[in-house]
Amino acid sequence: MDVISYKKICIFKDGEKIEKEDGIIVEKPINLYINNYYYVTLMCLPQNLKELSVGFIKTDGVIEKFDEIESISVLNEGVYINLADKNREIKRKESALTSGCGRGSVHISLMHSENLKKVESNKKFLSGDILSNVNKFNKESSLFLETGGVHSAALCGNNIIVRMDDIGRHNAVDKVIGYGLEKGIEFYDKYIITSGRISSDMVIKASRINLPLIVSHSAPTSLAVDLAKMCNITLIGFARGNRLNVYTGFERIV
Amino acid sequence: MDVISYKKICIFKDGEKIEKEDGIIVEKPINLYINNYYYVTLMCLPQNLKELSVGFIKTDGVIEKFDEIESISVLNEGVYINLADKNREIKRKESALTSGCGRGSVHISLMHSENLKKVESNKKFLSGDILSNVNKFNKESSLFLETGGVHSAALCGNNIIVRMDDIGRHNAVDKVIGYGLEKGIEFYDKYIITSGRISSDMVIKASRINLPLIVSHSAPTSLAVDLAKMCNITLIGFARGNRLNVYTGFERIV
Repeated sequence: MDVISYKKICIFKDGEKIEKEDGIIVEKPINLYINNYYYVTLMCLPQNLKELSVGFIKTDGVIEKFDEIESISVLNEGVYINLADKNREIKRKESALTSGCGRGSVHISLMHSENLKKVESNKKFLSGDILSNVNKFNKESSLFLETGGVHSAALCGNNIIVRMDDIGRHNAVDKVIGYGLEKGIEFYDKYIITSGRISSDMVIKASRINLPLIVSHSAPTSLAVDLAKMCNITLIGFARGNRLNVYTGFERIV
Repeated sequence: MDVISYKKICIFKDGEKIEKEDGIIVEKPINLYINNYYYVTLMCLPQNLKELSVGFIKTDGVIEKFDEIESISVLNEGVYINLADKNREIKRKESALTSGCGRGSVHISLMHSENLKKVESNKKFLSGDILSNVNKFNKESSLFLETGGVHSAALCGNNIIVRMDDIGRHNAVDKVIGYGLEKGIEFYDKYIITSGRISSDMVIKASRINLPLIVSHSAPTSLAVDLAKMCNITLIGFARGNRLNVYTGFERIV
């Protein structure tokens, strides 16, 4: 599917009016079916739909492990996931509309502390390594970010393992998580760089995959910081140039 | 409720490590009850909760007019709306997770064209006036945007009528819509400036309130452009300094 659509636009500049063709980032509704039941519609940039769906059903709490999935097919505007367990009841729970920047939908039950898992990881990360990956991440994305207004996320070890784009910051993160799950990558010694702000739902996603560190060049919210503390997750914001702010789990950054 | 929370953070700069207190933007779950039934949880910046709730239930399709609301009370972390119609069935419909930048939740039914109303308005807007309001809007918000990473929206006539902030771009827009509804302001000759990108759900909100123009300093998505055409809504993106891009409804901008 195309990710850029060309349309005639009209530019006003210093009072002058110019018509031209311009590339606009594509947003599509993608229906996700699990065991042939309709589960949810994701509005997204229609690329890496397999990764998006896998990451979404993991962070949404449908599956624990990737091998619960028997098959995935992407057909037109639908993604069809068959679970090994054919009798699994597929129903989305009551949801909260999160905000961050748009509204993500997370299960209200996840907002209760008893449902949040503590991340188990003794991994330490070097501040210099993080900044070097952030600067690489920003450099690579600048053009696309400027022209398309998209969000990006990257899964990192010592280096950037994979980066993905989407019109939604949650989708971009789900895409790199889905990629990691498919490749059998363990998350306990990895981190995610996101172009978006860190709201509570981002921390919930990290807790779901045992990820010890989230890095953003933007800010976290107070609830993200509180949940991250509870979940033993390190949050880094305002990571740019030669500086970064650590909000929780200071001991993990050296 | 506080909108900034102070926490100890740790800054790494050029390899040096400094501890300090820093202000972090507050994110809270706000439960919205309609006729004493739980309707939804909004993750938001806890200020202007009345406006947020009114704007939300209007753009979510619960009410058509403000006077369907008998009373609103804000208590602790809940907003309680009583409708004049006590027997109204309160149930959220099946929803799509939109993306824009996070994920908003809009009713799938709204994604079908037959449910989208065409905006009725012959109003013309001067490109110079729009740019002047956008530049005022950006100037006023720059500090808060930088420190807190929040989104803002403004409702504009000839000048900015009101501006509101939130951690979510949808929430900020709902807040200024709620303000307008409460004050009995007609939207057919107004426009909204948003700090966020324009995704399909923003256009759906505009269609719901008969708003002819959405302005952003960022980009629209392809679906937003397509829906805006269908709904007779003008979309302006990349409005900055002395220039703006008009994506639909060119004739409205002079």
